Amino acid sequence: MPRRAAAPEEFGAVRTDPASVGPVDPPPRLLMGPGPGSADPRVLRAMSAPLVGQFDPAMTGFMAETMALYRDVFRTRNEATLLVDGTSRAGIEAALVSLVEPGDRVLVPVFGRFGHLLVEIARRCGAWVDTIETAWGTVFDPREVERAVARTDPKIVAVVQGDTSTTMCQPLADIGRICRERGVLLYADVTATLGGNAFEMDAWGVDVATAGLQKCLGGPSGSAPISLSPHAVEAVTRRRHVEAGMRDAADELEAAAGGRIASNYFDLAMILDYWGPRRLNHHTEATSMLYCAHECARLVLAEGLRARIERHRLHGCAMLAGLAALGLQVFGDREHRMTNVVGVEIPAGVDGDAVRAAMLADFGIEIGTSFGPLRGRIWRIGVMGYNARRDAVLITLAALEQVLRASGASATSGAGVGAAKEVYQQARAA
Amino acid sequence: MPRRAAAPEEFGAVRTDPASVGPVDPPPRLLMGPGPGSADPRVLRAMSAPLVGQFDPAMTGFMAETMALYRDVFRTRNEATLLVDGTSRAGIEAALVSLVEPGDRVLVPVFGRFGHLLVEIARRCGAWVDTIETAWGTVFDPREVERAVARTDPKIVAVVQGDTSTTMCQPLADIGRICRERGVLLYADVTATLGGNAFEMDAWGVDVATAGLQKCLGGPSGSAPISLSPHAVEAVTRRRHVEAGMRDAADELEAAAGGRIASNYFDLAMILDYWGPRRLNHHTEATSMLYCAHECARLVLAEGLRARIERHRLHGCAMLAGLAALGLQVFGDREHRMTNVVGVEIPAGVDGDAVRAAMLADFGIEIGTSFGPLRGRIWRIGVMGYNARRDAVLITLAALEQVLRASGASATSGAGVGAAKEVYQQARAA
Repeated sequence: MPRRAAAPEEFGAVRTDPASVGPVDPPPRLLMGPGPGSADPRVLRAMSAPLVGQFDPAMTGFMAETMALYRDVFRTRNEATLLVDGTSRAGIEAALVSLVEPGDRVLVPVFGRFGHLLVEIARRCGAWVDTIETAWGTVFDPREVERAVARTDPKIVAVVQGDTSTTMCQPLADIGRICRERGVLLYADVTATLGGNAFEMDAWGVDVATAGLQKCLGGPSGSAPISLSPHAVEAVTRRRHVEAGMRDAADELEAAAGGRIASNYFDLAMILDYWGPRRLNHHTEATSMLYCAHECARLVLAEGLRARIERHRLHGCAMLAGLAALGLQVFGDREHRMTNVVGVEIPAGVDGDAVRAAMLADFGIEIGTSFGPLRGRIWRIGVMGYNARRDAVLITLAALEQVLRASGASATSGAGVGAAKEVYQQARAA
Repeated sequence: MPRRAAAPEEFGAVRTDPASVGPVDPPPRLLMGPGPGSADPRVLRAMSAPLVGQFDPAMTGFMAETMALYRDVFRTRNEATLLVDGTSRAGIEAALVSLVEPGDRVLVPVFGRFGHLLVEIARRCGAWVDTIETAWGTVFDPREVERAVARTDPKIVAVVQGDTSTTMCQPLADIGRICRERGVLLYADVTATLGGNAFEMDAWGVDVATAGLQKCLGGPSGSAPISLSPHAVEAVTRRRHVEAGMRDAADELEAAAGGRIASNYFDLAMILDYWGPRRLNHHTEATSMLYCAHECARLVLAEGLRARIERHRLHGCAMLAGLAALGLQVFGDREHRMTNVVGVEIPAGVDGDAVRAAMLADFGIEIGTSFGPLRGRIWRIGVMGYNARRDAVLITLAALEQVLRASGASATSGAGVGAAKEVYQQARAA
């Protein structure tokens, strides 16, 4: 194959002189987009703890603690509750590539961008994917899912709980029941919801769930908590293969009957053998991110999972009330909103990107737009993790009022902050 | 499929009461194994910087700086120099799954465990893998590689530079020349060597190289620097597909001619579009790990890459001299040692694991054993990154003398520390 230089425009914009680079010194930002939110400073500080070795008793102790903490966060008794070393998307891919054998049928109910992501990843795993779709801004009636399951007879149903692209939260309890009745594995992507919206892994019958730290858990992206039911562990373990160069350490392992998992890095059978009592070497655990994930979960449980979900609900409601009082139209089905992100339509005649740029440049506040059909049509304003706080809500509303007015939109002075305060007063009175 | 409970012993050992879990509080450890080494405290502190949004100009600025810094660390002008969000193994898999199309021939010269890992990953990518092997403790004569290339006509040669399992460092310049002459892509895993051993990506003609932070770069595991030559970028970009739900943002992209990459998370074509000027959303960048990787590279260049390699060489030599003076037999071909890890044979009659346990329990020092044929046969003692230091070398030798003597091995009092000091004195005199 002849060599050809890459197009010079590819990365032409990123020329920097290494000698001029100082330590990272991020500007202060209040991250009120759909995530990542601003991380809890306690979580960030946890990462500066010194390293220990991969098989140090202290390290395996931290791993065991992390497993125990996330069992309570996922509301499960699943032994196989651990971390995948990567972003939330790594967790999704680890789940799907380990469960899906080429040719397996997978049903994905799609109600936003992240449903499409599940389709995309499942297809790359070799699945035969069936989808059902509903308008962005709505969720599925469980009977629609039931009919699709009956029609397509999948091995796996893969669904997002909260799709930040539309701000919708899909009820999962009935889907879990449907899957249990039919012996279908249920995978749920709870990245954007866990720790700020109710999620009952065992009670709802979810077989595999994956998350990330950067939404309601109040951490940075980079570690993906995952939990697998015994049924899912069995499905994954049927595909266990031990890599050459490690075989002597695993003589006792039975030969696997299932097809080999297409990824080594995301091979949950091997990752389970690393986190489990066999402690077979796989990747080198990302220790600092594990410290971080450990602290995220610890803080969730110290606050109380129920109290934390209520906190997200309260501040999300206050934000919604404030945005509505600023004259913005709330997007989507209000009955099925995620607690932690509010979508509002960008008013006609207002340049949505210019508003976002002004919020960032003048007030240091980040808000988001969305993807696909909603790109430039809605703003998404997050209230999650560390930033699910009264001051963060009020300052965002105050700044947005200024920016909206400067952009030519009408916004009654003080209306946003006033409406949010009203929500807080009612909550105190209740 | 009927449901069955997982074997209870699977994770039975890891029961912990979440309510009793405090913040991580690692014991002090001097990590002198084959890696991770102890991280530089400045690198750990960099991770506590606050987050900024994914497309914040500050963030894209940090990404551009990170690319520039790693270009100098890899000794390359490759624009496509960036991070994969995961451990060093994630970098390997991203490289191979993005380059290898099912049925492609890949040649892997195997001289230790991590060569086997390349075989394993390439096979999972659907490659037809040919291997050549050499005894653990030796490296390949380039002519052996040349003959194998001629015989097997591979699309890709994949090779480890430094295989910590054997402590050997494979010379790559001639292999690069051979691959260039024949139009073969050369992938090198430089996880264990980069920043502490010479590596000349462009001069040697390496097309793709991947690393990790946890060895000579002095950081924790969890981010994988990667660089791709224009030729490799072209090979990867031929396989570009944009995921559904994102297509509107990428209307200008040409349809890809190559087969779709089997992984979404490791799809370097998409990751390049995220790091490049198109800024197409892919994963949510692991911001704290990026800060960390940025600081690792910045400290390497502030020290000077050449000075840092010389530091590794010096302290590695001092460690080797000390270990030999303690009566330990150095493992493998001394001409082709990595600078940053020394293998020594465990003396007959000495329980290698008991020595490692005593080093950890009594002195807080971690040293390693190896894998496969060398498990329990050698210890591996690392001198890398932050721990490539005189005090770390001398304290390790002093402690090991104590433990060896208590284990029944003969070790002349003061011989290890004395021999290491001799190396330092000669270096000062030179």
